[in-house]
Amino acid sequence: MLLNVLELLGIAVFAASGALAAVRAKLDVFGVVILALTTALGGGIIRDVLLGVHPPTSLRSWPYLLVAGVTGIVVFWFHPHVAKLRRSVLLLDAVGLGLFVTGGTTTALALGAPPYAACLIGMTTGIGGGAVRDLLLREIPLVLRREIYAVAALAGAVVVALGEWAGLPKGLVALTGASMIIAIRLVALWRKWNAPVARGLDG
Amino acid sequence: MLLNVLELLGIAVFAASGALAAVRAKLDVFGVVILALTTALGGGIIRDVLLGVHPPTSLRSWPYLLVAGVTGIVVFWFHPHVAKLRRSVLLLDAVGLGLFVTGGTTTALALGAPPYAACLIGMTTGIGGGAVRDLLLREIPLVLRREIYAVAALAGAVVVALGEWAGLPKGLVALTGASMIIAIRLVALWRKWNAPVARGLDG
Amino acid sequence: MLLNVLELLGIAVFAASGALAAVRAKLDVFGVVILALTTALGGGIIRDVLLGVHPPTSLRSWPYLLVAGVTGIVVFWFHPHVAKLRRSVLLLDAVGLGLFVTGGTTTALALGAPPYAACLIGMTTGIGGGAVRDLLLREIPLVLRREIYAVAALAGAVVVALGEWAGLPKGLVALTGASMIIAIRLVALWRKWNAPVARGLDG
Repeated sequence: MLLNVLELLGIAVFAASGALAAVRAKLDVFGVVILALTTALGGGIIRDVLLGVHPPTSLRSWPYLLVAGVTGIVVFWFHPHVAKLRRSVLLLDAVGLGLFVTGGTTTALALGAPPYAACLIGMTTGIGGGAVRDLLLREIPLVLRREIYAVAALAGAVVVALGEWAGLPKGLVALTGASMIIAIRLVALWRKWNAPVARGLDG
Repeated sequence: MLLNVLELLGIAVFAASGALAAVRAKLDVFGVVILALTTALGGGIIRDVLLGVHPPTSLRSWPYLLVAGVTGIVVFWFHPHVAKLRRSVLLLDAVGLGLFVTGGTTTALALGAPPYAACLIGMTTGIGGGAVRDLLLREIPLVLRREIYAVAALAGAVVVALGEWAGLPKGLVALTGASMIIAIRLVALWRKWNAPVARGLDG
Repeated sequence: MLLNVLELLGIAVFAASGALAAVRAKLDVFGVVILALTTALGGGIIRDVLLGVHPPTSLRSWPYLLVAGVTGIVVFWFHPHVAKLRRSVLLLDAVGLGLFVTGGTTTALALGAPPYAACLIGMTTGIGGGAVRDLLLREIPLVLRREIYAVAALAGAVVVALGEWAGLPKGLVALTGASMIIAIRLVALWRKWNAPVARGLDG
């Protein structure tokens, strides 16, 4: 129950990030809603396409669609206020990332993917929606450039895969993985951690 | 029979829009043909990947491939003449959109997708090819910015889903959905309808 | 055995091309590794998604993942030296293309795709990774613009499909197809062959 609420919050936050980016790119209201939907549901759709779940769960879950669509419309109308909530949005985004990655990894393992494949698919579940958002808006995906985002996702996925391999209780494993992702992201934001860039390039 | 001819016309028009965009981006002849193929077949391929139809129908239908490929070559050689046919192309594009969306929605329902998922998949079948075209050419997809394009597609898909849910004859339902999409698109073009953009952005 | 070594070399070369492009786009080390993985494995993942192989073979093969990931890290640290190996990289890229295309075509035929679908899927297996790399880095895919790249891939795929249709031994067919791709690419690079661009455009 709490998990469902958190999951819908994650969907809403991802949808809001897509809608905000679309508003800034001056898309019309339908473009904004489409970006909200693809950002919120894109990671899960990629996960299901890779795992052979047809049609993708996200498209079959009307609460997901409803929350993502309504969030898009709300952001379209109230975007200056949403943009002010930057800190809360980053916090919720970390929560969403944690839930999506651990959920994606667990699903992949349950469907028989080997552990390293499950980790990659779990990571993709978390970062895929944002990557699609940036591609549609003609940006180099932020996840490839931003402070410790993909690596936080991968670390959480690895924790889940190791935990399930060791036979620990699934709920505990998922909770640990998600908490770790959230913690890494918050510390990275707080300390402005960034991964190194290659040396030897001019400029 | 008439439906098959219309469908191939739709394929040809979508292929021509991809090929024209590729010619303008100065791709070579192979790039032009690849853009023609991906624009014409992209929506159907995305539909089949989401629904688990392997390999995608479009890749198994040689008339589709032939029409799309030949259209690409024709546009490569005669593109100044094709560009002059702008009005006819927009009309045929509306017809293609109508057929692709209603076909995609019907297929999704037939394969057991719930109605709202079928609507989204049907919409994606119609707008997916153009989105892939724009992504490959590094444009923000036109469908996210253009007059009432995605919403016409969605409206037609909803009509089909409602009609089939009500148990109306499938042919009638598809015809109504497609006609509605074509009508909305033509009126939007004629009246230069555009969806609203968010307020409060400078410039 | 030799084939496995060549295949891993192909993976490494494709990974290096993704990593080099990522270094130039100033991605951080994780972005570089992700680009290495997606470029090396992207074509195979697209092939498996189209053919319904779940989860994709590339994600289940740890040697592929290991080679691609390590190559990404090596390029990140030693990129000025790798960039100097341009000729060797182009040669190995031709070998990788030949192996990926013939492997993709053979797999598609084995899974029951009709010959023309198998050719398109085989071609996509070879050129898909590079296309994903360029899309993520916001470039028009090089394959749409570069000397005789897609057409070399397609020609090799057609040879494989014709050979298997004629009932020739599979090993011989694959070898012939791959050799042809490698030969076309090397001659195209040596003679600076390029496909024609449409006339009648200013500039």
